[in-house]
Amino acid sequence: MGKVYAVGIGPGGAENLTGAARTALDAADCICGYTLYVELLRPLYPEKEVFSTGMTGEIERCRACLKRAQEGQTVALVCSGDAGVYGMAGPLLELLPEYPGAEVEVVPGVTAALSGGALLGAPLGHDFCVISLSDRLTDWALIEKRLRLAAEGDFVICLYNPASRHRADYLRKACDILLESRSPETLCGVARSIGREGECCELLTLGKLRDYPADMFCTVFVGSSQTREIAGRMVTPRGYHR
Amino acid sequence: MGKVYAVGIGPGGAENLTGAARTALDAADCICGYTLYVELLRPLYPEKEVFSTGMTGEIERCRACLKRAQEGQTVALVCSGDAGVYGMAGPLLELLPEYPGAEVEVVPGVTAALSGGALLGAPLGHDFCVISLSDRLTDWALIEKRLRLAAEGDFVICLYNPASRHRADYLRKACDILLESRSPETLCGVARSIGREGECCELLTLGKLRDYPADMFCTVFVGSSQTREIAGRMVTPRGYHR
Repeated sequence: MGKVYAVGIGPGGAENLTGAARTALDAADCICGYTLYVELLRPLYPEKEVFSTGMTGEIERCRACLKRAQEGQTVALVCSGDAGVYGMAGPLLELLPEYPGAEVEVVPGVTAALSGGALLGAPLGHDFCVISLSDRLTDWALIEKRLRLAAEGDFVICLYNPASRHRADYLRKACDILLESRSPETLCGVARSIGREGECCELLTLGKLRDYPADMFCTVFVGSSQTREIAGRMVTPRGYHR
Repeated sequence: MGKVYAVGIGPGGAENLTGAARTALDAADCICGYTLYVELLRPLYPEKEVFSTGMTGEIERCRACLKRAQEGQTVALVCSGDAGVYGMAGPLLELLPEYPGAEVEVVPGVTAALSGGALLGAPLGHDFCVISLSDRLTDWALIEKRLRLAAEGDFVICLYNPASRHRADYLRKACDILLESRSPETLCGVARSIGREGECCELLTLGKLRDYPADMFCTVFVGSSQTREIAGRMVTPRGYHR
């Protein structure tokens, strides 16, 4: 009986893999994933079969993995960051009942909220929300509603997919919603190309974030009213008495 | 010039460490942390000096690490899960300006939302909130407000610190707030002792979660209206067309 490991590989290359992710990749007969992620791992496993599909072939990719598992193979389906956070673990499990005999095991990884947060400092030191600005699979009205409620709750907010070629103004639209209840001086941060060449980050205010030229390599953090800049880092205090 | 690495070690023992966390621990002259977490790592580093303080000595622990860094040592301050999510990275950075010459680097790890999510399936497949029910450092009124808004936004909600000896009824109070706007049939999950002896998880409804005997070893997941049980797992679909 075969198995698909849905493996979160963290940001960038090998150094962010967990031991459990390495164990799953070691055990796999083959590795599947979006081309960019598979290439990041190829130096570690030059001998393994890899197969890949384009960025939007998610369901096709899951079905290919489950079919191989049904035939007895052990397959690692790799995802950037965590396997469950907007990742392939969901669709794999949704399709699993159609492939009797196949198993799925989810191996977690360091999602961009955590790796980007570490780069910026400690923005997620208190309650937070993760919201994707991509409306490819979600109504924009629901995204707007969630942004509004997250701002009202003074959560730290981590925005995934803040922009793409077809959604150049989405971050601006999101900021305008947040600015309905949050100060333009709210501390924000952007982490870019986390764990890859060109990795960098910067701090800015919510007022300035509105005009920030975000792209698909960015993860965006909007602080709570308590978030402060300390020693050049973005920090949300939990409230310990010093 | 010395340095403190704030290292997220993930849940449980060595297998959930990332490569970057291993590199930081390898480089450290000494390892500091809450006794339980330090003991999980001791088999990996039997030769290293370790020092430790009790559960509530967070500030004391941070100061001890920063002082050693100021004296030129490299110190790894280890945190369960991620270093930034309700972790020691925040207070370390808050105190850093008082210790000129010391540096702080944050090394992210797999927080319980991700590791518990993987154990349960893929509950975090869409937008989510992380909320701690501990009112040791946060007013309960703010926790209530955030629960109410997260429920209204139909976020998946991950609850940290759902109960302790002194807060036996907090999960029930939280469920009652969520039930104001969410169905008692909402799918929920509990992950317990993630990555450690006795690791287990179970699915139940929000109506049943209200009476669940949670303790400090539990991480609780409350699904969105879209979250479903599939093949015994908790899955929040992102909405791919199959």
